[in-house]
Amino acid sequence: MDRAQLHRQLPDGISSILKSINELPQLRRLNRDLLPTLHSAEACVDKLLQLIYPGYFGNESLSSDALSARIDGLAHEIADVLYDHVRFCLRYKQNADRPNDADLDGRCENCDQEASRIVVAFFGKLADVRAMLADDVQAAFDSDPAATSMDETIFCYPGVLALTVQRLAHELLLLGVPLLPRIWTEIAHSRTGIDIHPGAKLGRRFFIDHGTGVVIGETVETGSNMKIYQGVTLGALAPAYGQRLRGVKRHPTIEDDVTIYAGATILGGETIIGSECVIGGNVFLTSSVPPKHVIMLDAPNLKIRDRRPKSERNPDGARIPTTDSELSG
Amino acid sequence: MDRAQLHRQLPDGISSILKSINELPQLRRLNRDLLPTLHSAEACVDKLLQLIYPGYFGNESLSSDALSARIDGLAHEIADVLYDHVRFCLRYKQNADRPNDADLDGRCENCDQEASRIVVAFFGKLADVRAMLADDVQAAFDSDPAATSMDETIFCYPGVLALTVQRLAHELLLLGVPLLPRIWTEIAHSRTGIDIHPGAKLGRRFFIDHGTGVVIGETVETGSNMKIYQGVTLGALAPAYGQRLRGVKRHPTIEDDVTIYAGATILGGETIIGSECVIGGNVFLTSSVPPKHVIMLDAPNLKIRDRRPKSERNPDGARIPTTDSELSG
Amino acid sequence: MDRAQLHRQLPDGISSILKSINELPQLRRLNRDLLPTLHSAEACVDKLLQLIYPGYFGNESLSSDALSARIDGLAHEIADVLYDHVRFCLRYKQNADRPNDADLDGRCENCDQEASRIVVAFFGKLADVRAMLADDVQAAFDSDPAATSMDETIFCYPGVLALTVQRLAHELLLLGVPLLPRIWTEIAHSRTGIDIHPGAKLGRRFFIDHGTGVVIGETVETGSNMKIYQGVTLGALAPAYGQRLRGVKRHPTIEDDVTIYAGATILGGETIIGSECVIGGNVFLTSSVPPKHVIMLDAPNLKIRDRRPKSERNPDGARIPTTDSELSG
Repeated sequence: MDRAQLHRQLPDGISSILKSINELPQLRRLNRDLLPTLHSAEACVDKLLQLIYPGYFGNESLSSDALSARIDGLAHEIADVLYDHVRFCLRYKQNADRPNDADLDGRCENCDQEASRIVVAFFGKLADVRAMLADDVQAAFDSDPAATSMDETIFCYPGVLALTVQRLAHELLLLGVPLLPRIWTEIAHSRTGIDIHPGAKLGRRFFIDHGTGVVIGETVETGSNMKIYQGVTLGALAPAYGQRLRGVKRHPTIEDDVTIYAGATILGGETIIGSECVIGGNVFLTSSVPPKHVIMLDAPNLKIRDRRPKSERNPDGARIPTTDSELSG
Repeated sequence: MDRAQLHRQLPDGISSILKSINELPQLRRLNRDLLPTLHSAEACVDKLLQLIYPGYFGNESLSSDALSARIDGLAHEIADVLYDHVRFCLRYKQNADRPNDADLDGRCENCDQEASRIVVAFFGKLADVRAMLADDVQAAFDSDPAATSMDETIFCYPGVLALTVQRLAHELLLLGVPLLPRIWTEIAHSRTGIDIHPGAKLGRRFFIDHGTGVVIGETVETGSNMKIYQGVTLGALAPAYGQRLRGVKRHPTIEDDVTIYAGATILGGETIIGSECVIGGNVFLTSSVPPKHVIMLDAPNLKIRDRRPKSERNPDGARIPTTDSELSG
Repeated sequence: MDRAQLHRQLPDGISSILKSINELPQLRRLNRDLLPTLHSAEACVDKLLQLIYPGYFGNESLSSDALSARIDGLAHEIADVLYDHVRFCLRYKQNADRPNDADLDGRCENCDQEASRIVVAFFGKLADVRAMLADDVQAAFDSDPAATSMDETIFCYPGVLALTVQRLAHELLLLGVPLLPRIWTEIAHSRTGIDIHPGAKLGRRFFIDHGTGVVIGETVETGSNMKIYQGVTLGALAPAYGQRLRGVKRHPTIEDDVTIYAGATILGGETIIGSECVIGGNVFLTSSVPPKHVIMLDAPNLKIRDRRPKSERNPDGARIPTTDSELSG
């Protein structure tokens, strides 16, 4: 009876929603070519993970004998789905760039051909990407005494997952695919808490530990042997300029062999962190650091209050010694 | 054989678990009316996303011709599920408030009628919520030079997802639904790393970039044109008081046009951040800031150590220039 | 036609991937015994949650009458799956430790028997784990004025979920199971943003609020009544030493009744935070603090700039009062 009453009164609510949908066209996507659904994009990323790390992911064990057939099958499945996603995204972009051209209407003569070319080129890059990932996996194992095997870093390290997806998405971006690279890295972000823009240029042996809250912006460039921990931001200053900064270098450059501890925030397109620097936890930096320096928030900047009644206090109790000489990278 | 041995010895373990279940009634939920399952709550949130942003989510493309029927169908599906969830939660609340009233027994004469009224009222709010979200989506695009289109912000921005769910949950909360609003925002938190309590009162054009680690507490109030970045906390002081503070304003108030950079922590119910303020990254604030001020952790508070042997050092090498004049919002 | 072209050119890409798979054996896992798939490990964790908190999770309501049969059924399902996972992991470990022993070939005479013993012992620990979790749930409710019921903390608090999984994984680790405990805690990390190593020894009444970005390292030890907030790291110094530090105590010890606010980073195996200390938000600590002290980043360390033209400034406007006396724990 009460459900019946609900159904009687619902049409008014539905009318107001339909009115709102017509009044706010920017929140609907009608009569455009299909973009990839999030579901199919996730399935594609999962199959790429199986292709990159054969035998780790997916639900089946893998024998040497079956390897070649499995890879062949996976590659064809990925190629078919990716071809659709890429041509959808190419058409989408062409429509988006000319929103008032009624004649275009989602058709795109070159999109299918271009998509085919891009997918072939993407597969041609996978061996190089795997070589970089092998270095990343090795770096993760070498850098973390909590890692008991390389398998554990492939299986359990969100940093390895996020880097794998970003390095793949970066290749797609270089091949000129719109939107899809961002969809891929956002899938990794949702799973790992690590948000690396597909445009970032990351050096070899890149290690991210724990990783939740890490943000690496679109125009970041790094050298080799980077170690970064959870909550590190390599970001942009001056968000007030907004869209006027599109395409401008606005995120930091990090040279070789730099370690950045948890929670440090480093901002700005002209900020360069020199090689062999160590940036301590929770540091906020908007300017460059020359090579071979350690930067840290130091204990003298901390305020210390003794919670005990005065009579119980040890006069030396409130001195907090520092051990920053241990802060190596 | 070893599996058989396991099965022979398992009954002892099961007995000890059953004993524990009886001894710790607070960890079980028996003979109470159904709460929504997390699975069905997630499905409901996903359908709401399809209703708010037609054509973006879900697995099908959407034509102008099909729009009206699709919205009608979605709205009915949501209304049916939400009606059940709301009346479950209303009954649950009535039971929880009188845990010793054996007569109550989950029955609740007004709950169904009340649930019907609430769901109708909720649908009546959706057009207003969509209008606010249109502003949020526009603000996300305007504020982030990495965004290439409005579609990208709807599709790929966790901040837009978290705000969408919070604005919907906030309406449910205002309509008097217990528990369900928190279940919804926690679903968004799990997907995005952004934890906004359904009670928070958020102004228009609210932009959250990246967002992992953002926490916005129950009694936060903000003006318009807020920009916040990953890892920002708008939280409470004095957790020692615990439940005694329930309902008390204990989280900050933020006025119009404020930017808060990554990792800043702002605490306290009497803390007011004035309009047009900029709060730098990693700042820890427990007191108010007057309008039009920039607050930042500054380089002079950093300790700098040169890692090179003394003979190789440049006497000026350790000076880190600041570029805080760029820290605009 | 373009898809046909793609299929014609794909074989070259596939060949290069197969070549890469053979050249980088560290990224493949062939001819080894099955490790648990992530999917089946997740299903096992979900069933354990149903066993620990009967009636909360899963899709069915639970009556007193059905309780015993449901628990018995769940326990058998878990035992069967866990038995397989444990013996896979034991065999995996034996292979990993002797990678060049061709004779081993995945066989392991004692692994099945050992797995049976371990699963029985694990079930024998569950009542104790539930007792600890009952304290954790109570602490979560007591500590957070935003919590409206114990049900809400079980249903909606990521900290409770992460602790539940960690306490279970810790028991598995103590029983000598390789890899699987880390797979479990990483499942919780992916859902909650809270990364607690299964090796950490956590005291009773442990409360984590919001939790995104929390990292608690392998050799952390804590007392009772810990309260920690989002973004807190209890981590290691000197990552340069990498694998040489495996097994060494390299993460902090926290005594009883300590509160650590959002974003604080505390590092080092010799760092001890004394009982009843309060660590303020965004503090970076690499040294010990005696009991009953409050440590915070203080406002005098902040740089303040007035954005208004000089003529409009109030001479007192830039003074930010502190309210740190409220920073209790």
